[in-house]
Amino acid sequence: MEVIMNLDEKVIKEQPLYHGAILDLVLEDVLLPNGQTAKREIIHHHGAVGIIPIDATGKLIVVRQWRAPMRKETLEIPAGKIDLGETDPKAVALRELNEETGLFSPSLKPVANFYSTPGFADEYLHLYYTDNLQPVAHKRQLDPDEFLNVMHLSFSEAQKALADNEICDAKTVLALFYWEILRLKGEVTLG
Amino acid sequence: MEVIMNLDEKVIKEQPLYHGAILDLVLEDVLLPNGQTAKREIIHHHGAVGIIPIDATGKLIVVRQWRAPMRKETLEIPAGKIDLGETDPKAVALRELNEETGLFSPSLKPVANFYSTPGFADEYLHLYYTDNLQPVAHKRQLDPDEFLNVMHLSFSEAQKALADNEICDAKTVLALFYWEILRLKGEVTLG
Repeated sequence: MEVIMNLDEKVIKEQPLYHGAILDLVLEDVLLPNGQTAKREIIHHHGAVGIIPIDATGKLIVVRQWRAPMRKETLEIPAGKIDLGETDPKAVALRELNEETGLFSPSLKPVANFYSTPGFADEYLHLYYTDNLQPVAHKRQLDPDEFLNVMHLSFSEAQKALADNEICDAKTVLALFYWEILRLKGEVTLG
Repeated sequence: MEVIMNLDEKVIKEQPLYHGAILDLVLEDVLLPNGQTAKREIIHHHGAVGIIPIDATGKLIVVRQWRAPMRKETLEIPAGKIDLGETDPKAVALRELNEETGLFSPSLKPVANFYSTPGFADEYLHLYYTDNLQPVAHKRQLDPDEFLNVMHLSFSEAQKALADNEICDAKTVLALFYWEILRLKGEVTLG
């Protein structure tokens, strides 16, 4: 198959279409490698964090919440947005873990960082793991528009939630795969 | 921790802000479980497919391409958008595999389906696996604005690409985790 040496697109024009609370929309005109032009619809986002928290009995802690884009409840690992100006994703992860579960971890281990959907958005997610949890001294309040229930799932309960499409988002599927790798390697309590 | 029985948000008002080629932006006013209201910025998207293709030598096939939102080249598994009206994600996966790699698989195995970023978008991705590949009889053209190079990565090369942040998107990280699970279970050729 032919190898194209230069895949870069050059931005000719940037048209901001929407500036919002959690995202911006920009329409770009770009110059393609073959000299033609194309339009790119791009969502800018400040990024996010997710935490894979395994409790002392070997269960995964998830939150049940309403998700407006799909108009349904989901089960997801604790997660949250990075606010404008925040530069330490681990601190954001500890804040979200506190707000959503009332727990603290002295040892968050980086699992992977990734763009959620690189075709149209620059949202970058920092994913951490911990099986070292303790109650926080001071529980932070959830955001005023945030409502959720905390649940602890055994491995088989989590697999059933995945099969039932209650676990249905990329970072939480990633969490289940990572958990399975740890279990296969014998590196985690078999809850 | 208090359990909230009803997490649902009721949509009071929907304001379409942008209707684009690959995404729509809608601003919703919603009624929260506590009776207050909030704004939700929502991206509607027709969904996507991804394929984890392992070649006969046990290597992962990825594509190098330019990604406008991040303005950088990435290495990703073959993938593509579901067009309006397309109802069979497996057929879309075969089309994208053909266009991007010139290969066909008689046996795509479903791995997982998930929302890419459930906080603000309804994009749903169907992920498949195959280690049963053959050249297509008739190679389809790429989209006119699509340019990419095909690469075959050993497991250790893929891990290095992840460490180097060349593999940097959720579905491809998921592909690496799934591949590792298959290897740990002895269910795949160790390339």
